[in-house]
Amino acid sequence: MKKYAYGVDIGGTSVKIGLFDKDGCVLDKWEIPTNKENGGDSVLPDIAESIQAKMKEKGIDADDVEGVGVGAPGAVDGEGTLVSGAVNIGWGVFNIPKVLGGYLNLPVEAANDANIAAFGEMWQGGGKGYSNLVAVTLGTGVGGGIIVDGKILIGANGAGGEIGHIHIEDNETENCNCKNKGCLEQYTSATGIVRLAKRRLAKDDKPTVLREGTLSAKSVFDAVKEGDEVAVEIAEQFGEYLGKGLAAVAGTVNPEIFVIGGGVSKAGEVLLKYIEPAFRKYAFVACKDTKFALATLGNDAGIYGAAGLILNK
Amino acid sequence: MKKYAYGVDIGGTSVKIGLFDKDGCVLDKWEIPTNKENGGDSVLPDIAESIQAKMKEKGIDADDVEGVGVGAPGAVDGEGTLVSGAVNIGWGVFNIPKVLGGYLNLPVEAANDANIAAFGEMWQGGGKGYSNLVAVTLGTGVGGGIIVDGKILIGANGAGGEIGHIHIEDNETENCNCKNKGCLEQYTSATGIVRLAKRRLAKDDKPTVLREGTLSAKSVFDAVKEGDEVAVEIAEQFGEYLGKGLAAVAGTVNPEIFVIGGGVSKAGEVLLKYIEPAFRKYAFVACKDTKFALATLGNDAGIYGAAGLILNK
Repeated sequence: MKKYAYGVDIGGTSVKIGLFDKDGCVLDKWEIPTNKENGGDSVLPDIAESIQAKMKEKGIDADDVEGVGVGAPGAVDGEGTLVSGAVNIGWGVFNIPKVLGGYLNLPVEAANDANIAAFGEMWQGGGKGYSNLVAVTLGTGVGGGIIVDGKILIGANGAGGEIGHIHIEDNETENCNCKNKGCLEQYTSATGIVRLAKRRLAKDDKPTVLREGTLSAKSVFDAVKEGDEVAVEIAEQFGEYLGKGLAAVAGTVNPEIFVIGGGVSKAGEVLLKYIEPAFRKYAFVACKDTKFALATLGNDAGIYGAAGLILNK
Repeated sequence: MKKYAYGVDIGGTSVKIGLFDKDGCVLDKWEIPTNKENGGDSVLPDIAESIQAKMKEKGIDADDVEGVGVGAPGAVDGEGTLVSGAVNIGWGVFNIPKVLGGYLNLPVEAANDANIAAFGEMWQGGGKGYSNLVAVTLGTGVGGGIIVDGKILIGANGAGGEIGHIHIEDNETENCNCKNKGCLEQYTSATGIVRLAKRRLAKDDKPTVLREGTLSAKSVFDAVKEGDEVAVEIAEQFGEYLGKGLAAVAGTVNPEIFVIGGGVSKAGEVLLKYIEPAFRKYAFVACKDTKFALATLGNDAGIYGAAGLILNK
């Protein structure tokens, strides 16, 4: 009987690897650097070597390993092929399971990193117990992953769940990173919240602790917790935008639950207080009761989800 | 070898039934009235009787029938249960395959009527050849059905694809039928287009053929085809709203193609001329090339999709 699986989350700076038992408990986790020289040629050999070294260290036989799941930073199709390469590693188009499986002589599956993070939150995180969920990542940008009936919704070009670029504001004058104007990401990412805050502060001279120190998503929500009125206004605006955007998502895929993660979600439950009322205002009647939860796996969501590709079929 | 399947599309006034061969060709189609007396108790027995009579008429043996697919007007879960009943027939909560299968002694599968119409368009209609599509129905209201990897996206409450109530306009003063304000349906359904037209006509006295006769979605698009400037303005506004809404849908599920159906789509290709540019303006870069097509099955999409539940697994 197979006992173990590995979850691998490939990032532009480092590769996170986790060793999991069949129950989805992480037994060990570690990182190796992402060597981007020569078009990232050594990244997969490095991963294979690291996994084999760990097997030797722990006395794990290849026969005891169910397989290796991989999350990669790019659009990945249902067969694990990077359909447009992965720019920040230097990778072109190739099939990850075929190449990594060749080095390891183990079954390999691969998916997009945002999608496996969503899968991880479903399997062992804030969305545990649900099989229809949307994971929302509020970080430098806004990303997402959609799980339908326990499976990742990949989409035609691997862009399923790219909810950060839903158009949400007709009166925006600045461009989003994607070149469009008025994307959800421009108001609800960490940088988007700072934009909202700067605009609010420029509007009048109302006193607020936000005029001191460095503005950040964290400083805004810290001030909200202190009852700062200006910060509360900014949080309401953030919640209005995100609630409205997620209502559109709910009207499309009708999930059981939204799981909110990413750096901004470190603000905690207070975040949901501003998202949920706006969501319920804009959502279609059949979706108004959609649940909300915070992500719980943090930066480990990727290795959990990757291992889950193997263990949670 | 099984040779046939039946597709049943249950509406509030009549039930459409089609007899299909294994290649998805319709061999015969007919309608029976929907008897809503006694909470619709006789609807399923009537359907069973009609199917059995047709089998007798055509000399078809039960052994030659692969099964019966059913589309019902209400939220239907993955097991074919009407999760909140079907108000316009008077039905409560029950499992359609179990009840109808009991009368017929044949395998039965059931799904929501909007979703099976989408499935029909994928199988034999405007979306033939695609397995990731969004069907958009522009009728009295705006509905939709989403197919992911060849399967209907049902959603947690059977509300998957209910895109008509995506919030699209912050400055709306009138309520949608759903009680919210600014829903996609308020601008892009047949009635929504009439609303846009009335508002435009009230704005000034610019001459237009639309000031004569009865306003309808058809009269607007007929005038567009004649080059009427006011009608073109209305069509542009319609396209702007629908394109923006579908861009949000594409950013969520990333389909290969949108298939546009419903009464409004009878306007033909001219419709797409107003939807597509707006869509491409608002869509996320990875989704800008999503294709558009018109639905081709008209009112038969339901019986095709229902038969497809059986024949196209």
